[in-house]
Amino acid sequence: MDSTDWGALAQDWLARLAACSAPGPGVTRLPFTPEHRAALKVLRALMRQAGLSVHLDAAGTLIGRQEGPEGQSQAAGAPVLLLGSHQDSVREGGAYDGIMGVVLPILALMKLRRAGARLPFAVEVLAFADEEGVRFPTALMGPRALAGTFDMAALEMQDRDGISLRRAMEDFGLVPDALPQLRRDPAQVLGWIETHLEQGPVLERSGHSLGIVTAICGIERHMVTLHGAAAHAGTLPMALRRDALAGASELVLEVERLAQGRAGLLATVGAVTVRPGVVNAVPGEVALTVELRAPDDADRTAAAAALALSAQAIAARRKLGLEMSRSYAQPATLCAEQIISALSEAAMACGHAAPLLPSGATHDASAMADLCPVGMIFTRCRDGISHHPDEYVDSAAISEAICVLEQAISRVNPA
Amino acid sequence: MDSTDWGALAQDWLARLAACSAPGPGVTRLPFTPEHRAALKVLRALMRQAGLSVHLDAAGTLIGRQEGPEGQSQAAGAPVLLLGSHQDSVREGGAYDGIMGVVLPILALMKLRRAGARLPFAVEVLAFADEEGVRFPTALMGPRALAGTFDMAALEMQDRDGISLRRAMEDFGLVPDALPQLRRDPAQVLGWIETHLEQGPVLERSGHSLGIVTAICGIERHMVTLHGAAAHAGTLPMALRRDALAGASELVLEVERLAQGRAGLLATVGAVTVRPGVVNAVPGEVALTVELRAPDDADRTAAAAALALSAQAIAARRKLGLEMSRSYAQPATLCAEQIISALSEAAMACGHAAPLLPSGATHDASAMADLCPVGMIFTRCRDGISHHPDEYVDSAAISEAICVLEQAISRVNPA
Repeated sequence: MDSTDWGALAQDWLARLAACSAPGPGVTRLPFTPEHRAALKVLRALMRQAGLSVHLDAAGTLIGRQEGPEGQSQAAGAPVLLLGSHQDSVREGGAYDGIMGVVLPILALMKLRRAGARLPFAVEVLAFADEEGVRFPTALMGPRALAGTFDMAALEMQDRDGISLRRAMEDFGLVPDALPQLRRDPAQVLGWIETHLEQGPVLERSGHSLGIVTAICGIERHMVTLHGAAAHAGTLPMALRRDALAGASELVLEVERLAQGRAGLLATVGAVTVRPGVVNAVPGEVALTVELRAPDDADRTAAAAALALSAQAIAARRKLGLEMSRSYAQPATLCAEQIISALSEAAMACGHAAPLLPSGATHDASAMADLCPVGMIFTRCRDGISHHPDEYVDSAAISEAICVLEQAISRVNPA
Repeated sequence: MDSTDWGALAQDWLARLAACSAPGPGVTRLPFTPEHRAALKVLRALMRQAGLSVHLDAAGTLIGRQEGPEGQSQAAGAPVLLLGSHQDSVREGGAYDGIMGVVLPILALMKLRRAGARLPFAVEVLAFADEEGVRFPTALMGPRALAGTFDMAALEMQDRDGISLRRAMEDFGLVPDALPQLRRDPAQVLGWIETHLEQGPVLERSGHSLGIVTAICGIERHMVTLHGAAAHAGTLPMALRRDALAGASELVLEVERLAQGRAGLLATVGAVTVRPGVVNAVPGEVALTVELRAPDDADRTAAAAALALSAQAIAARRKLGLEMSRSYAQPATLCAEQIISALSEAAMACGHAAPLLPSGATHDASAMADLCPVGMIFTRCRDGISHHPDEYVDSAAISEAICVLEQAISRVNPA
């Protein structure tokens, strides 16, 4: 009988990694920095403690590998299961986002090894360098390099100190020109399983410690501008006004109604600019952003069409000019049925009912989906808080996630 | 038969005065500047041309006076009728705002003189230095000095170059400490008649060249802040959101509805600030301004109370925090019945139906009302445009306003 308190051990490891941070509140660990180097040192030791062989790839991804059955390890076609997440944080972020998804599979493999399990495939735990995109205006280099979708032009992007991504990587001891060689053969990769805190309140509210992700929502963003007529607020009668803000207010409420009427759809007006924007002037122009997220691309596309119709109707009724343009679009990533099933069965084996839910945020799994079937476990997080020093995942949820990972790894069918 | 084209003559005078401007588009004539001095020189000549005796008072108000019957002129208790407006403009303003209200009564007195009229009271035409409050964060010094309501502390206010109002006046040749001596005895002042362009589209739309003002609207301004909870737009389900912008949007539409339901009331949300104000965050805090204007203070007060109730209901339903504070309040100024009647009869005598309407903007008359009965004539202005180089009043409307002034002056009863 194993007496290890896996949840407590994970918290201890996470606390050691949280100490690898730039000064200030919470955790600030940007890619290719001294903090990143410190975290890699800790992770290397933990991976070795779990019996993994460790190397850093050309993208700065730390890889801990457990070989498959003897004779398979050196074979070109040896199947491998990939697990992990990212090592980096936002500025003044928390101790769980990303890094928990690296620590937990190491512990799950340690637990399997102690139990004497022998897997019919190799397993790798990956700690990607950069998922948050805080330092450079790009992200997901590690998984994109594996999937062969990384755009080498991104190497010339600069951080706010004028240091290019290429230079930062070279200074970190990496060889950026070797990135194309990281591409994996999809036929060899069994799948990608990522563990992450939910970053929202759904699991906590529903009383579940874990959930299984069905899809990573597609996202589209629109810039909408309504043109009315600016006027003196004291001399233009109400009936003669073409108030751009009144029209924009109707649109904000339409956006909200749109999402309330469609399960899974999230719709947000996040930014509003009013011109001239003074107390005694009828607003002549209002620009606002609309963001739509949905696990189903057809739902999102239908919502965008409904939004456009609403905006046109409001503009026509209020005699406002309307400009609307899509500034960003990213399709949804569906999690693989077989991984969802393996995770659900694993949760049952651990004694938990893990609800299915979509992920509203993007994750490394979004890029890994170009390489292999993907799946994700979400843990509840306290008060839904993330990207903040107060970010917290309790030990019970962590312990259950380790159990589910262990059970799920055992259930993967390499055939 | 007088063959003078009074409208054309007024346009000529106004063009000469418009040339007294700082460089740039339109007219920029701030108080106590070389442009102000140039305008006073032109006005002095015009006043003398109309047979008026001219002097500059300690507030920088240029006064052209026509004495009453002989023997009355030197008497302490000689009744006087005051007419005029302000000489200053906003930056890059128009050629009519304020200054037209100085030029037209000079022409009306010239016309009366030519017709051989002998008035049983003295008449003064006043060109106040500063009504717009553009240079210094105060205004209406001229009329306030006459009414005895000027706050001497305002003399220490500075313009954007750090020059105090006191210093600017002294450099202009004035003696600010003599301001208290300008106070007039209300018993001697028959009334104040101000002519101004409407600065709105009401008269033009209704097909009238002139209107008679019933009241200058009272104004109150509120700062309303709604506090919700900022959140990641991808991870917080719609049902759990406390979106401050959605609440604010309801309030904007309530403000609009409030005013549409009450004749005379104007209600405007002019400025909105959204925090954090980014595309992928549910807004956690929205601050907005609400301005209410009404010719009847009771209507305005009732609207403010209704606004507060609406804001409270919205905040309660959406679980938002609410702060609401009144940042400014100025009561309405009622025009005097006897002056409204005199102006209406004068308009009839000139062959025009002049509708009654409130003024949404503040004027010198607001401060003069503390001294004597006040009244105002509004002229239509093209497309409702004012405070802009395109500001324009047509010669027909100007000619009619001169007729109405001439007839109204004749109708004033000094008893």
